[in-house]
Amino acid sequence: MSDNCSFCKIADGEISSHKVYEDEKVFAFKDINPQAPVHIIIIPKKHINSLETILEEDEAVLGHIQIVASKIAKRFPEMKKGFRLINNCGLDGGQTVFHIHYHLLGGRVFAWPPG
Amino acid sequence: MSDNCSFCKIADGEISSHKVYEDEKVFAFKDINPQAPVHIIIIPKKHINSLETILEEDEAVLGHIQIVASKIAKRFPEMKKGFRLINNCGLDGGQTVFHIHYHLLGGRVFAWPPG
Repeated sequence: MSDNCSFCKIADGEISSHKVYEDEKVFAFKDINPQAPVHIIIIPKKHINSLETILEEDEAVLGHIQIVASKIAKRFPEMKKGFRLINNCGLDGGQTVFHIHYHLLGGRVFAWPPG
Repeated sequence: MSDNCSFCKIADGEISSHKVYEDEKVFAFKDINPQAPVHIIIIPKKHINSLETILEEDEAVLGHIQIVASKIAKRFPEMKKGFRLINNCGLDGGQTVFHIHYHLLGGRVFAWPPG
């Protein structure tokens, strides 16, 4: 856990959130600024800054996040016809919290380009 | 390999592409309709339809794709300030080829919402 990281505090329960999923490695909660009818943020409990700073040893938890995204999507009827999973990395990517996170969005048709 | 899948054929070399990266599990190539100065598609060589149909056993290759995305990004100076990694799942998500793939985009600032 990183002391000044808001997402570490959310995973730890120190900051409250609308929790959607939790297991020993991963935590998921509703985005407070939703960009779609369903907008969930999925994070590893381990503090990792971004996709730029991941290590080989993070492969398992990052793969697990993909599995968790798929499982969460199945629980929401709004995502029956599909969804979009996004990782913003760095300032150009639009990353605002430097604890790696994946945005799971569903419940509408998504346009291309993706932002 | 799935017989009628264009991405299986690209990974197999049967359809030519601008290859960016390859190892025993993953293949990456430039998107022919780029949505950013750098736009690369990363796929597992194993045929998997989408994030909706992944199995627990796919966790390792999906984690590996995240690592590969990070490594590829480091090779492009255009992505030094960040990038966006996207998975479109199903029709609502904007998936057009039903072989799971991640879009790695960089070289510009990305807007929010992501499509």
